[in-house]
Amino acid sequence: MALILPESDKKPLMMMEAPQPASGSRRPTAMLVVMVGLPATGKTLLARKMANYLNWVGQKTKVFRVSDYRRKHVELYSHDLFRYNNIEAAELRKKSAMEAMDDARSYLLQGGQLAILDGTNCDRSTRAQVMDTFTRQHQIRVLFIECVCDDEDLLESNTKEILKHSSDYKEMNLEKAVEDFRLKMEHYLEVYQTMSAKREPQASFIRLVNAGETVTARGLDSPLDARILACVPLFNPTAKTLYFSRHGESEFNILGRIGGDADLSPRGRVYAQALSRYFSDKVRVPGLRVCVSEKKRTQQTAAGLPAPFEVLAALNELDAGVCEGLTYEEMQEKYPQEFAWRDRDKLRYRYPWGESYVDICRRLEPVLLELERTTNVLVVAHQAVLRCMLGYFLNKDPEELPYLNVPLHTVIKLTLEGFTYRMETVRLNVECVDTYRKQPRNCSDVRSADEALKTVPKHYDNLKFLTSPLIEQH
Amino acid sequence: MALILPESDKKPLMMMEAPQPASGSRRPTAMLVVMVGLPATGKTLLARKMANYLNWVGQKTKVFRVSDYRRKHVELYSHDLFRYNNIEAAELRKKSAMEAMDDARSYLLQGGQLAILDGTNCDRSTRAQVMDTFTRQHQIRVLFIECVCDDEDLLESNTKEILKHSSDYKEMNLEKAVEDFRLKMEHYLEVYQTMSAKREPQASFIRLVNAGETVTARGLDSPLDARILACVPLFNPTAKTLYFSRHGESEFNILGRIGGDADLSPRGRVYAQALSRYFSDKVRVPGLRVCVSEKKRTQQTAAGLPAPFEVLAALNELDAGVCEGLTYEEMQEKYPQEFAWRDRDKLRYRYPWGESYVDICRRLEPVLLELERTTNVLVVAHQAVLRCMLGYFLNKDPEELPYLNVPLHTVIKLTLEGFTYRMETVRLNVECVDTYRKQPRNCSDVRSADEALKTVPKHYDNLKFLTSPLIEQH
Repeated sequence: MALILPESDKKPLMMMEAPQPASGSRRPTAMLVVMVGLPATGKTLLARKMANYLNWVGQKTKVFRVSDYRRKHVELYSHDLFRYNNIEAAELRKKSAMEAMDDARSYLLQGGQLAILDGTNCDRSTRAQVMDTFTRQHQIRVLFIECVCDDEDLLESNTKEILKHSSDYKEMNLEKAVEDFRLKMEHYLEVYQTMSAKREPQASFIRLVNAGETVTARGLDSPLDARILACVPLFNPTAKTLYFSRHGESEFNILGRIGGDADLSPRGRVYAQALSRYFSDKVRVPGLRVCVSEKKRTQQTAAGLPAPFEVLAALNELDAGVCEGLTYEEMQEKYPQEFAWRDRDKLRYRYPWGESYVDICRRLEPVLLELERTTNVLVVAHQAVLRCMLGYFLNKDPEELPYLNVPLHTVIKLTLEGFTYRMETVRLNVECVDTYRKQPRNCSDVRSADEALKTVPKHYDNLKFLTSPLIEQH
Repeated sequence: MALILPESDKKPLMMMEAPQPASGSRRPTAMLVVMVGLPATGKTLLARKMANYLNWVGQKTKVFRVSDYRRKHVELYSHDLFRYNNIEAAELRKKSAMEAMDDARSYLLQGGQLAILDGTNCDRSTRAQVMDTFTRQHQIRVLFIECVCDDEDLLESNTKEILKHSSDYKEMNLEKAVEDFRLKMEHYLEVYQTMSAKREPQASFIRLVNAGETVTARGLDSPLDARILACVPLFNPTAKTLYFSRHGESEFNILGRIGGDADLSPRGRVYAQALSRYFSDKVRVPGLRVCVSEKKRTQQTAAGLPAPFEVLAALNELDAGVCEGLTYEEMQEKYPQEFAWRDRDKLRYRYPWGESYVDICRRLEPVLLELERTTNVLVVAHQAVLRCMLGYFLNKDPEELPYLNVPLHTVIKLTLEGFTYRMETVRLNVECVDTYRKQPRNCSDVRSADEALKTVPKHYDNLKFLTSPLIEQH
């Protein structure tokens, strides 16, 4: 009899699972996505964002960037590397591409589900070679994603990002870099052949014009293809700045109760005012968009902001099911088994009739995609929800999510710089309780109440707490 | 303190939740999808399948078919209704379209999330009017989906379906119907204007060529748009015949144990042979594709079939978590609270560290989409999983799913006829236990073990069972 014990129940996070292809016995889905397009059309950012998103939804994905391999061979960068009749450089670039492909192939053969080959792959013969290597020799499906950009503003902003963040240009002054980039583009234009259904009838591809304004897909062959098609037009390269805040301290926070739908405490209301001042006076965000949950405490926190708020149920706090409204002490008393289970695997643990962190990750998916295409948004939400959201943008290991520290009364700002987000935190000076509870050492079913409650943060009807002042900082 | 009681915890099934748009306070996402295209391009089937799928993922969706309204006004059908200079008929068709739009609008204003207007909407002025009514007057987003078909075979097979199933032609002989349809098409060709980004710059649209061979999208504006984009190319009109079977009787079935990974019982092995004979001799399905779960009992059942099988983890039986491998009697003894909760709301109840029916519905989504584009597939899976799959294709109310009867040792065949599936069941003549457990009358926390176990089906170490023969039929 195969009894599954919770302790060993570390299941994969499979938030989405693609059907396995092919026949005979089990074989994981393996797919190579090949980026295609001229420089500055948004390929690398798209590849990174796609990888982050697909990992999030449970597809093991990794980007292999050809230029990273090239940089290992060539220290000094110049546009001349890309001149089509520079035989020596062409050899070298070919070598780099082969190395990237080799690594992508190894990754897929060793259990990776999706490898993204990030390069220009501008001509048909290169693409035919990739198809030959992967599809013919290894039966690995290949999907091309071509980025096309004819919007001058977008092209200019993409180019600026490259000149600012790419290591290729870090030794050049701006004027020289601009000229070098222009020449590189010219070299590519000489060899670039757009994807063509007629000339490449075997190829499945998605073409993205101006970062999603128009999308065309040909030869889609699976729900995974379709899933990729659904996300790529949403990754907007101009979506750069995101703000996050928990609601102000609530009455339940003071009482150490979880969940519920309490009002703000007096100090929480002061935070709401401080937050409103911060966004009205200190940072004036053009076109600020505010999203809150259905809970009163987020709406009360956002009420004074210089923008109306949108209510998203997906932003609601983790549903604690039968434990909604309890203190940890009460939970230990009424549901000691549940309390121990949760401490053992907080990421996957679901409250009876409630949710787990994994559940939140899943319900947040459309919101995250919405944020991927928007900028200057402030999300006012809850501890567990914000842990998941920050984990997504900062590319955290899912196991870390339940213990990320997201304190009350603090504004968190994420800014996209190059291909990663930079995080800043601004603590507004309003006192509040600390709601962070560390994983206790003893998570066994037979631990004592004392051991279970060792890391519970101080709160009003907690005996320890009564001996120290309410306003103590943590 | 807002304690959520499990008994009142009938939450919506929100398997996917789209972010709410707009500002101020809460407002549900409302969207009108408008089908565009000539007759026989697959619009109606796509609209139906899309509605079924979107309802499944938690978007309240309904189709409003203009021709249904027209049929209320005109009893006798002829192509002449569609002659562009038939003024009287044009008025009548306009009236029908207005009625469909009115109903769609009411549906959206009364809480529906997505209305699909199924008609030809062939000319730009009609489309402009729809945009005006919905977007300008009611701030309801409009997304057009244009179906184009230039594949002769597909066009012919779509036409055949229409002539066979549409009530318009039920009074005509085939020859007359073919001619009538040809003339109707000619009338439409005189007025048809394809969607154009240049001439309809305000319109967001998806264009589907040959049922998904090529897809183009313009002006997508939300994760819901993207979700629609992701599903439409997968609804293949030639995917018509699906077969389903539970695994043969397993050793756990005999013992009355749930979950686990047991081998087939001797009678289960006989069923596997019978199933193999059925598909080898009785019905010879061209290009048969077989999908099984990771569990031994499905693979042992499929081992003799005239096609290799594909293993899909998403087809695994509902994970009973801490109750895996228990009998209902043991569950009542060890987890009476859980057992009562499950009986109260079997659809939403999750075993500790396990799953609910809702969870299965979600993980089945990519498999269902895969089946939507495939034909001649046999799925060998498990009771709960097949309940959900059949519920999807037969458009059942989710509340019915946990109590659908899917007996052992029975082949279920679904055939798409027109726009709905017809179900046939073939019981192969191999005896087996019955695993169906009705909802008991008493589902309260304080019921006696006797009451809780009243509907448990007979099995080997169940006392009642020992008094009757193992091979008894149910």
